[in-house]
Amino acid sequence: MAVRVGVLGATGAVGQRLIQLLEPHPEFEIAALTASESSAGKTYGQAAKWRVNSPIPDDIAEMTVTATEPEAVPDDVDLLFSSLPSSVGAEVEPTFCEDGYVVSSNSSNSRMADDVPLVIPEVNAEHLDLLEVQRDERGWDGALVKNPNCSTITFVPTLAALAEFGLETVHVATLQAVSGAGYDGVTSMEIIDNAIPYIGSEEDKLETESRKLLGEFDGASLTHDEVEVAASCNRIPTIDGHLENVWVETEDPLSVEDAKTAMREYPSLDLRSSPDQFIHVFDDPDRPQPRMDRTLGDGMAIAAGGHRESTFGLQYNCLSHNTIRGAAGASVLNGELLLENGYL
Amino acid sequence: MAVRVGVLGATGAVGQRLIQLLEPHPEFEIAALTASESSAGKTYGQAAKWRVNSPIPDDIAEMTVTATEPEAVPDDVDLLFSSLPSSVGAEVEPTFCEDGYVVSSNSSNSRMADDVPLVIPEVNAEHLDLLEVQRDERGWDGALVKNPNCSTITFVPTLAALAEFGLETVHVATLQAVSGAGYDGVTSMEIIDNAIPYIGSEEDKLETESRKLLGEFDGASLTHDEVEVAASCNRIPTIDGHLENVWVETEDPLSVEDAKTAMREYPSLDLRSSPDQFIHVFDDPDRPQPRMDRTLGDGMAIAAGGHRESTFGLQYNCLSHNTIRGAAGASVLNGELLLENGYL
Amino acid sequence: MAVRVGVLGATGAVGQRLIQLLEPHPEFEIAALTASESSAGKTYGQAAKWRVNSPIPDDIAEMTVTATEPEAVPDDVDLLFSSLPSSVGAEVEPTFCEDGYVVSSNSSNSRMADDVPLVIPEVNAEHLDLLEVQRDERGWDGALVKNPNCSTITFVPTLAALAEFGLETVHVATLQAVSGAGYDGVTSMEIIDNAIPYIGSEEDKLETESRKLLGEFDGASLTHDEVEVAASCNRIPTIDGHLENVWVETEDPLSVEDAKTAMREYPSLDLRSSPDQFIHVFDDPDRPQPRMDRTLGDGMAIAAGGHRESTFGLQYNCLSHNTIRGAAGASVLNGELLLENGYL
Amino acid sequence: MAVRVGVLGATGAVGQRLIQLLEPHPEFEIAALTASESSAGKTYGQAAKWRVNSPIPDDIAEMTVTATEPEAVPDDVDLLFSSLPSSVGAEVEPTFCEDGYVVSSNSSNSRMADDVPLVIPEVNAEHLDLLEVQRDERGWDGALVKNPNCSTITFVPTLAALAEFGLETVHVATLQAVSGAGYDGVTSMEIIDNAIPYIGSEEDKLETESRKLLGEFDGASLTHDEVEVAASCNRIPTIDGHLENVWVETEDPLSVEDAKTAMREYPSLDLRSSPDQFIHVFDDPDRPQPRMDRTLGDGMAIAAGGHRESTFGLQYNCLSHNTIRGAAGASVLNGELLLENGYL
Repeated sequence: MAVRVGVLGATGAVGQRLIQLLEPHPEFEIAALTASESSAGKTYGQAAKWRVNSPIPDDIAEMTVTATEPEAVPDDVDLLFSSLPSSVGAEVEPTFCEDGYVVSSNSSNSRMADDVPLVIPEVNAEHLDLLEVQRDERGWDGALVKNPNCSTITFVPTLAALAEFGLETVHVATLQAVSGAGYDGVTSMEIIDNAIPYIGSEEDKLETESRKLLGEFDGASLTHDEVEVAASCNRIPTIDGHLENVWVETEDPLSVEDAKTAMREYPSLDLRSSPDQFIHVFDDPDRPQPRMDRTLGDGMAIAAGGHRESTFGLQYNCLSHNTIRGAAGASVLNGELLLENGYL
Repeated sequence: MAVRVGVLGATGAVGQRLIQLLEPHPEFEIAALTASESSAGKTYGQAAKWRVNSPIPDDIAEMTVTATEPEAVPDDVDLLFSSLPSSVGAEVEPTFCEDGYVVSSNSSNSRMADDVPLVIPEVNAEHLDLLEVQRDERGWDGALVKNPNCSTITFVPTLAALAEFGLETVHVATLQAVSGAGYDGVTSMEIIDNAIPYIGSEEDKLETESRKLLGEFDGASLTHDEVEVAASCNRIPTIDGHLENVWVETEDPLSVEDAKTAMREYPSLDLRSSPDQFIHVFDDPDRPQPRMDRTLGDGMAIAAGGHRESTFGLQYNCLSHNTIRGAAGASVLNGELLLENGYL
Repeated sequence: MAVRVGVLGATGAVGQRLIQLLEPHPEFEIAALTASESSAGKTYGQAAKWRVNSPIPDDIAEMTVTATEPEAVPDDVDLLFSSLPSSVGAEVEPTFCEDGYVVSSNSSNSRMADDVPLVIPEVNAEHLDLLEVQRDERGWDGALVKNPNCSTITFVPTLAALAEFGLETVHVATLQAVSGAGYDGVTSMEIIDNAIPYIGSEEDKLETESRKLLGEFDGASLTHDEVEVAASCNRIPTIDGHLENVWVETEDPLSVEDAKTAMREYPSLDLRSSPDQFIHVFDDPDRPQPRMDRTLGDGMAIAAGGHRESTFGLQYNCLSHNTIRGAAGASVLNGELLLENGYL
Repeated sequence: MAVRVGVLGATGAVGQRLIQLLEPHPEFEIAALTASESSAGKTYGQAAKWRVNSPIPDDIAEMTVTATEPEAVPDDVDLLFSSLPSSVGAEVEPTFCEDGYVVSSNSSNSRMADDVPLVIPEVNAEHLDLLEVQRDERGWDGALVKNPNCSTITFVPTLAALAEFGLETVHVATLQAVSGAGYDGVTSMEIIDNAIPYIGSEEDKLETESRKLLGEFDGASLTHDEVEVAASCNRIPTIDGHLENVWVETEDPLSVEDAKTAMREYPSLDLRSSPDQFIHVFDDPDRPQPRMDRTLGDGMAIAAGGHRESTFGLQYNCLSHNTIRGAAGASVLNGELLLENGYL
């Protein structure tokens, strides 16, 4: 029997992707859609300007949107997917958790909190048990789990694959798609025939979230990894797909072939949304490319290529679909992990 | 009285920009236009598909294009600007130099040769005197001077400005415009809603040309600088303007303010095509941007911004107009330097 | 048992789409891939630069490409899909037909020939029987059927839906995607931040092919329809999806609601590649849009919207996926029609 | 001595273009900048996010922005350029006119009012004298003159050039740049790899403003022309430059050569911002193109090309720079006309 789920912030860009992924999902059944006060009471079809390129499902269009507050969500809903603006998320997510809901959240608030697991299932599923600590400390019946920022999700799996060589330093430059900023985040006047070498507070996310994701959880507390990361973030005129240039220096010697093999063999999981092949490694030096490769594994795979011995350590490029693997799909995958691990 | 000049490879993208810059130039007078065999004998208007966004000058349109060989160029022409494909340049540029012509070339062939000066006038004008060595060794009446690759020209001036702090390591990721590949270099199917993380042999150019440009000439030979450079190059959907993310580590401490001051105060020259302000430094973290800032100083300035203390050393972004400062304008500026220094 | 088929011109843009559509097709089995002399003898993986955004199927990659001539194609192949350049098609397609092959061709040659059926199955399936005339006249065992140009396919179905009102005049302006010109047809320098109000001989195709498609076949000969069509064609910076603005004047009064109903109710077919809904009609005035709506019906549907009473008659917009419904998918659908009608 | 002028709505996209054009203008001196309440009291540098691609002039950056009300504007200012949102313009423009200010407005409000001249100086300068009627009727010391919508300005000059042949019907399809919607008007998610076949109320503007512009003023009242116009409007991914496809049917026979000659010879004016050549006519069928031709005559010229005998009458394409000739430059030109005709 399917778990009844809700989407907090259902009308936004990630909310729409969540609905697109959850509606056909055999383990989940959408039972609640919330949005801001101004949308509450409307049907979803009225409240949302649907912009995903598959038609809005009829039954979803007819659901009534509620306010984003625990009282408005049916009690038999067990799992909430949250794509709220971070300021809203910071305020309301804890009220849902107190009320007993398990929240799988894409919002950036609380990602770095000591007792909040930040999870990419293939990379650090074992961090999920930090929820025991969280429940103890906060006295929650519910739980709050986060997925990282879309630009972090893109390169951390490739680092995880190389961790056995002893990660020391990482430089990463990102070429990020406009969808990462939401539907209204980047105007056309800003980006056509242009690039913007700045995304507010993004560089910090790559630098800190990566260390938490690669850290060790000993059953009681989490120690962040010591790899040092420097990030430079750019917005470019692509719709979907974040491309990243990475240089990594390791303790142990790391050849191009070692790196490709480690990435290719890095295991995927058995979760329903896991791709068969987690990291696709290209031999062709001009791949991966956003438009060509973002839909690998239905948008849930990571692509890597261009491996080359650099002046400093190893250099390569990686890519993921920022609104699927990097946002909505990441939250759904965490939901599947919560289900498998008995948290629902 | 104006120096009579010619353009080798006049029908291509850089050739057209050269004509656009040379036609109104008070010190130079266009007296020869060469192209491939198939164009020889046609008027320039017939031979070239003019694609610069100012109308083709009437007198240029009516000039007869000749083959690219010394016999086809009038003897009273003193200076040749070359934008030939590098394989052609490698073959024919020396024949012009033997024949007494001075060649200011944008083509990539011979850039790293020991006796060929590779020059950005504001950075290493003194390297020009390597021409004495060149003439001695090769027995040429003419001379061959090169400007670097467009992606190299963008970041080397900012490094030159920081050289006093002792350059140690540089990581540079480039976001390059399609015009850098010539009119037919990148198809629309390849680049719309996409990015390509690879430009053939480009990374090597940034890594090696930068060391030559920053090197020391002692009157007899040139010693390359020891700064270690790692480059990662990307093509993005912009028309003009290469944007670069740079991380630099220095021997001496280098603050954000030190770096900005050093760049702002890095001197320009008195050459006719020199911009008043060589390096424009932005305080606004989201600048420079290609479409907004590529025409600073009529396309001959460098722009920099986003200075930030990084996990490793200092981080910033820089930009230049790749077909003006990075190609045609670079060759013209070298021509002006040759004139000023008595090589014509 | 699947019909064994071949693809003539398999390495080009439409050829790759054909393979993408045919490879999983239950009624067809790919048994031959042809290309130009220079590719013959190579594996398809070597010969083609695969640029469709799904991975190249392994068994296809390993097939050997042959020259485009009847002797090179196995005899047990019954049906050939042709996406040859029209000058090549004009030369070699008849040789295949003489040799007994049935050819479903997307190439523009012979489309207007009196004895060559030009078919959109949902619109004029009955024209297929012109093949009897063709075989009689030409003495062929094989047969040649054509699908129209991608820009013609987009608007003709909507006209067919309105035919009962008596079509008199049509003005159509097209906004066409770059993929319509093939992989190398439009350079990035030509189209980024730009539009080109001209596509060679395209306007003529819309004006004449539409009259043939809407014409009447009496069992012996085909009479073209008398609707008068004026077309103006533009290339814009989109990857896939031709959008068209149409004004139509009819003999009988035609209201917005009449037109929308006629289009919505225009029947689809039972062929395997037919979409469930042939023409999708939008009420939202800003639809259809290329990126949002080109994949309706897996790229085989037509979308229409923006219906409005104009100063002259009725005005609306329509859209189709130019490389699926407008090219490769159109040929496959004609292949399915040939199979159903016993021509194989 | 320069006329002191002000800009109403100075911080928006057209406001910034107005400042860019007025700042170096020898006949006008910027003495007032107004914006919404929230900007009043700030310096212009603080209030405006400057996005024109030439640096903000220092003296402008330091001017204090005032509220948009007559009391806030110095009395010695004679002429106001207005680029207010039309709802605001409808409210405040009359209060300025009552107070004695002459207003040259780009806002769409009141364009179709009987006593408000709608003027393209090269086309219908004589309509300006409608201001006598306006002052009589409204009892204003000031005056209100309008320029048409950017998409109207593009094609009406070409119709004016053909008027002698007796205009009967016009179909026009537009391909409009994103800047026409203002800085935030079109998001990047809406337009990259896409086109939008709808611009709210735009089609009506082309259909009605054109008839007013081509109408006759007999000294007392204005009779609109009887040409019938049908418009279809599209937004495409270009930054600047509206391209339009036109079909025109005329009473008298109109050949391609007649049309090209009439356009080429259509006179420009002696006003300071008038281009030397008003309508540039291209013989090359693929011109004009937005990125290539929008800056002809410093963005004040009209470009036309692709003339062809159509199924119905004559067909051609035209282009203008929508934020210069189509908006800010149009208002400045009307200001120059007001000055020349003694209205200041």
